[in-house]
Amino acid sequence: MRALVLREQSFGIEEIPSPVCAADHIRLNVLACSLNHRDQYIRDGQYAKIKYPVVLGSDVCGITDDGDRVVVDASQAWGPDARAQGRDFHILGMPTQGGLAEEICVPAANVYPAPSHLSDEEVACLPIGGVTAYRALFTRGELMAGQTVLITGIGGGVATLAMMFALAAGARVLVSSRSKQKLALAEEYGAVAVDTARDRATVDLVVDSIGGDVLTEYFELVRPGGTIVIYGASAGTANNVNLHRVFWKQLNILGSTMGTPRDFANMLEFVHRHEVHPIIDSLYSLDEAEQAFNRMKAAEQFGKIVVRCSA
Amino acid sequence: MRALVLREQSFGIEEIPSPVCAADHIRLNVLACSLNHRDQYIRDGQYAKIKYPVVLGSDVCGITDDGDRVVVDASQAWGPDARAQGRDFHILGMPTQGGLAEEICVPAANVYPAPSHLSDEEVACLPIGGVTAYRALFTRGELMAGQTVLITGIGGGVATLAMMFALAAGARVLVSSRSKQKLALAEEYGAVAVDTARDRATVDLVVDSIGGDVLTEYFELVRPGGTIVIYGASAGTANNVNLHRVFWKQLNILGSTMGTPRDFANMLEFVHRHEVHPIIDSLYSLDEAEQAFNRMKAAEQFGKIVVRCSA
Repeated sequence: MRALVLREQSFGIEEIPSPVCAADHIRLNVLACSLNHRDQYIRDGQYAKIKYPVVLGSDVCGITDDGDRVVVDASQAWGPDARAQGRDFHILGMPTQGGLAEEICVPAANVYPAPSHLSDEEVACLPIGGVTAYRALFTRGELMAGQTVLITGIGGGVATLAMMFALAAGARVLVSSRSKQKLALAEEYGAVAVDTARDRATVDLVVDSIGGDVLTEYFELVRPGGTIVIYGASAGTANNVNLHRVFWKQLNILGSTMGTPRDFANMLEFVHRHEVHPIIDSLYSLDEAEQAFNRMKAAEQFGKIVVRCSA
Repeated sequence: MRALVLREQSFGIEEIPSPVCAADHIRLNVLACSLNHRDQYIRDGQYAKIKYPVVLGSDVCGITDDGDRVVVDASQAWGPDARAQGRDFHILGMPTQGGLAEEICVPAANVYPAPSHLSDEEVACLPIGGVTAYRALFTRGELMAGQTVLITGIGGGVATLAMMFALAAGARVLVSSRSKQKLALAEEYGAVAVDTARDRATVDLVVDSIGGDVLTEYFELVRPGGTIVIYGASAGTANNVNLHRVFWKQLNILGSTMGTPRDFANMLEFVHRHEVHPIIDSLYSLDEAEQAFNRMKAAEQFGKIVVRCSA
């Protein structure tokens, strides 16, 4: 089969043997696979414990030998504690073979029917971004209809999915970005653009992956007793964190990453019930997969970058 | 009556008129009143919106004209939202007259029967410290029997009450302090001394009032999915806060201050049920009240500093 293979000294399409499935695994023809920042970090060698060679790609829409179209939960071995993943937790696509290939073997327990209202490419947007957005917004952030949520750094896969989920849940959605173009696109979907350094909005929940020194700006935007869910920290560590504001305003600062099998199942059910359509930034063929990585690295995307893997 | 009066240019015992109670207030003879850091901050002019002259003191054990011994909830006008106090929230003892006096008028709704197993001086330890410790540990921190809690800066009023509450609740209690003497005292009560910079304990909950750059040390001590409740920040803002740890470990960083009327009632019920005895550091007469303030400023206390106000 053809696959996008990352070796220590090379990255490109190769003809490699089809995978042989272990017990409790099932074989899929990969229909589409979307990219995540994780793939980019691994390609750039900026990830813990990289094992070469590897086929990247965590977000798989595939078809079984029986013809069932499915989506794969990328979280493996979460463990017994719903509050946090255990030591054996890992993500599909390094160290195990990922989805940027024509075929894949995945644990049968991680396979779910694909939501029928979505295209293959839309289904492939869901696994990591969808469960991350769902857990951050609902399991951790406890967002309810009528509340106001700020989603920072709009444009990325998780952020755009979070925006669509929050709008579907009946929340008022504010978004921030350094890109005026991305803010304009988000407003077309029904979000409201804000400048977190200047605007004095009052929000119930912030869902953030920027972190850094911007974090303290959210302390002013969030209402007393409100919540900031952090699912990433692209701007790094935070400084001058005003803890007096944290205790006097009774704030909740909650870390969140990925999600449990229940989060994943709830996310799929939510997408189905509300007929949510993920936003696709761009679509590439498997032969063009390296261009897809370059698009992600440029950080210009609005929505998910998807690779079509087989017909 | 006699009272400890803080004026812009003076601080000492004066003979002033007895208070005249407004509607919905009741008159108490003050039996004992304990000090809080808040009193010290106001005396030093380091508090927002100080109004002179004022009688300080928020923690009152008193006796009604009917002879009932009572304790007073120092939180006034919390507001309708249990998650956070409202705009009108204020604390007994500035701007309204406090308890370092022979008599006081307090809102009838804030008056509760004093736990019968406690001395007047022990009762006076409870209001601010007790409700702050209770909300931090249980309402916010959701501490359960069998869990491990770290209480930092042991020695202060809230911290020692939190230690006694956590022990009574069946938790394993770790404590930290720069003072070896305070650590030794805490160990006499059943706590275990740790050095947060070096020891690699695993805790479910941290209850902290230090903040500053020590905050990030707790990220290593707390288990995945664990909680840090911040009720003060004596070391100021936090720097180099590793947000990657926050999201990957799914941590909860929760601000907490004071407590709702329900927190107060639950705290009293807890103290009664478990027959908790607050730790008294030292006892002064009303005439000696200024010495009590000096004791607090020296930060050498282990437990509450109490002033006996009338016979």
